[in-house]
Amino acid sequence: MFRTEFIIEWGDCDEAGVVFYPNYFYWLDCTFQRLLRDRGLSQRELMRRFGVVTPLVDAGAKFRDPAKYDDVLRVEALVETWETRRFRIVYKLSVADRPVAEGFEVRAWANKDASGAMSGRPIDEAFKNLML
Amino acid sequence: MFRTEFIIEWGDCDEAGVVFYPNYFYWLDCTFQRLLRDRGLSQRELMRRFGVVTPLVDAGAKFRDPAKYDDVLRVEALVETWETRRFRIVYKLSVADRPVAEGFEVRAWANKDASGAMSGRPIDEAFKNLML
Amino acid sequence: MFRTEFIIEWGDCDEAGVVFYPNYFYWLDCTFQRLLRDRGLSQRELMRRFGVVTPLVDAGAKFRDPAKYDDVLRVEALVETWETRRFRIVYKLSVADRPVAEGFEVRAWANKDASGAMSGRPIDEAFKNLML
Amino acid sequence: MFRTEFIIEWGDCDEAGVVFYPNYFYWLDCTFQRLLRDRGLSQRELMRRFGVVTPLVDAGAKFRDPAKYDDVLRVEALVETWETRRFRIVYKLSVADRPVAEGFEVRAWANKDASGAMSGRPIDEAFKNLML
Repeated sequence: MFRTEFIIEWGDCDEAGVVFYPNYFYWLDCTFQRLLRDRGLSQRELMRRFGVVTPLVDAGAKFRDPAKYDDVLRVEALVETWETRRFRIVYKLSVADRPVAEGFEVRAWANKDASGAMSGRPIDEAFKNLML
Repeated sequence: MFRTEFIIEWGDCDEAGVVFYPNYFYWLDCTFQRLLRDRGLSQRELMRRFGVVTPLVDAGAKFRDPAKYDDVLRVEALVETWETRRFRIVYKLSVADRPVAEGFEVRAWANKDASGAMSGRPIDEAFKNLML
Repeated sequence: MFRTEFIIEWGDCDEAGVVFYPNYFYWLDCTFQRLLRDRGLSQRELMRRFGVVTPLVDAGAKFRDPAKYDDVLRVEALVETWETRRFRIVYKLSVADRPVAEGFEVRAWANKDASGAMSGRPIDEAFKNLML
Repeated sequence: MFRTEFIIEWGDCDEAGVVFYPNYFYWLDCTFQRLLRDRGLSQRELMRRFGVVTPLVDAGAKFRDPAKYDDVLRVEALVETWETRRFRIVYKLSVADRPVAEGFEVRAWANKDASGAMSGRPIDEAFKNLML
């Protein structure tokens, strides 16, 4: 289980005084990047070491309870499922032990050719081992 | 079916040269607000006329094909399901007839008391009729 | 004078119910990109045709009057000054003829080497002529 | 001098691989909010204790050197000037002692009436003392 925290800022909230929901997906993505970093990886390192990118295939979140500015948002992340060419990360978001949201991302393991076109390929075992 | 368009801007894309995915949820929310406006409504009008807010309960998207800056993103929206206290809006996103993503939002119909606490209540028929 | 418009969205506003100010800079940048597009250019086309990027050197804005969601923000842009290696774009932002803000960007005309390091160079006359 | 840090995230950067500049203004605003918090204040506390808001009047930044994702952005903030109804905060942004940008915000001290209209008023001495 990887854990990280974000301070919810004034600018992250909408007129209703609660987090504008697309920001939760920004924090899911940030958490994935921080998880990579925690394992000595990054988008650039994935490209350098494995020649791949990890494009998003599917994402979603269920919102339990609002969070507001000055709250410290804790995010827990776990790679829940490994398919051959895809993996699913699940996230739990909370503020002071109050559940705020649950989310997930499904990401592909893909080559990117010179034109920018991507094609999936089997996930390297070395990456899986680093993410356990 | 409600249709609207967004120009994908330089700042909406990440280092990979494609849309940073949380922005798609920003456009889903924008589309919902534009749909309200198209029916003579808005967040403020919902509060004034019905005394309610429409907090997000669940959201998700499947990403088919990347979009990049200068693309014109077309979004089609439809209220697909009415439950007693919730409704589900589905979205189709495309660029020049190329499917880019499909998304949904589930929103509640809720009162908000002075402390900011929200409680669901049955959706007003007048709102449903406006959204058909 | 180049003119464009943006719809101010729910998610662009903060708890005070007015635009969260960094978003104004997002719209300045968008307007610059739309101005390029209006002249048959884009960041990619600048790289292809002139081999340059236009990094921001300086930016600022004075805020006259708040704008809020559902407002249509009109932005007028003009390249005000050409220096040898830099140019200054000025922006006027209004809602229904009510002045909202005035801003500027100073951008450099720069080469980018393989390491990503940038070095200024004299602005091509062909670019100036396109931007008049 | 107040100091805080931000991790520059993947989603904060543009296709050129460097921070999309409006995000720097987001971090200026965040730093101001964190400075308030450091003094036992917040936007809500300012309203409760002094009955005021601090709308932005002017903001600007000069960009020295690009920053990119995974960089830790250090921001130093200082209230540089107190006018009767306005104050100016200056910011220095750096990555590992490399100057990245310098910015400022001028904020007003203002009442907000029921209609949302704001009118400046002399800054309370108690606020000044807390911000020294």
